Amino acid sequence: MRTDARDNRERVLRAAREVFAEQGPRASLNRIAQRAGVGPGTLYRNFPGLQALLVAIISDDVDRLCTRGRSLLTHPSPDEALLSWLREVATHATAMRGLVASQMAALRASRDPALAACHDAIRDTGAALLARAQRDGSAPAGVDIADLLVLVNALAWASEQAPDDPALLDRLFALATGGLLDRAAGKLPAWGRYGD
Amino acid sequence: MRTDARDNRERVLRAAREVFAEQGPRASLNRIAQRAGVGPGTLYRNFPGLQALLVAIISDDVDRLCTRGRSLLTHPSPDEALLSWLREVATHATAMRGLVASQMAALRASRDPALAACHDAIRDTGAALLARAQRDGSAPAGVDIADLLVLVNALAWASEQAPDDPALLDRLFALATGGLLDRAAGKLPAWGRYGD
Repeated sequence: MRTDARDNRERVLRAAREVFAEQGPRASLNRIAQRAGVGPGTLYRNFPGLQALLVAIISDDVDRLCTRGRSLLTHPSPDEALLSWLREVATHATAMRGLVASQMAALRASRDPALAACHDAIRDTGAALLARAQRDGSAPAGVDIADLLVLVNALAWASEQAPDDPALLDRLFALATGGLLDRAAGKLPAWGRYGD
Repeated sequence: MRTDARDNRERVLRAAREVFAEQGPRASLNRIAQRAGVGPGTLYRNFPGLQALLVAIISDDVDRLCTRGRSLLTHPSPDEALLSWLREVATHATAMRGLVASQMAALRASRDPALAACHDAIRDTGAALLARAQRDGSAPAGVDIADLLVLVNALAWASEQAPDDPALLDRLFALATGGLLDRAAGKLPAWGRYGD
């Protein structure tokens, strides 16, 4: 991709995030083009529709999460690395669902390969972090990364149901991951942080 | 309430559960009256509308859950009693949401006092079971029953998203409550049951 094309793409995605945040996921594409300072033609060439735009935003976030996850693979404490990454995934899930909730069913139904790639990337990154914590003995051997991600997603969903309680996600996270850490090592796990 | 009036009420509620299960929560009240073998007048006298019927079904389930919870207060193991009751709440939440998902927002908005009473009854029963496990030292001191119920509800929501995986709720439950039990007592908690 040429530099100016890449710049345009970035500018459109940044504008889309802003406009979605202000107006919800049904914001018009023309408004987004306007905010980005590009012509509608440029926007449609990069993103043929609302779904393509949403998938691109999700992909960007997932790239960032996976880069972060890979860098956590050298963190001195494998269990803290795993929990810290899962916590970021939960925050991402909350932000994304707010953004795309009304579109998510359509997105899933579209079986967009970029979305499937996001799913795989998150699972693989999480699996590497979990495997490291399991080798270290600080996460139980039987845990499946798919279940762990479903759990994190459920916590994100619950926290969205209570917009008046911004600390809920942290409390639920400490509550639900209390059994995950340091049992083998005999250290105080996340439970110790619940309610502090 | 006279015996025949109570019988009619029970018959209508049983028929409503069946018809809802077959046709979803938008089933017609006339169909429910037909199935129950009562006239539409009898049904409307007991339940002036769909919401009243749904609230009555929820109240019945909650009564059963609270009776069960009270009987668990004499269970020899306070932590097993708590977990076992929370597991039943999760099952109830799953069944109920399947039934009333499309009506739940309206139900909540209606601020029906019977629904608020259900909420309070579940919280009080759970609080008694949790307090007992905390006194026993088998549940951590800082946990709040409200958070625990939000967590259980989130697991129920997640399991509904995966209708093809009926064992998911059990796995999530073991995963998320692994930190809840027996830390103080040093026994193997629910984690030990995850993935068995």
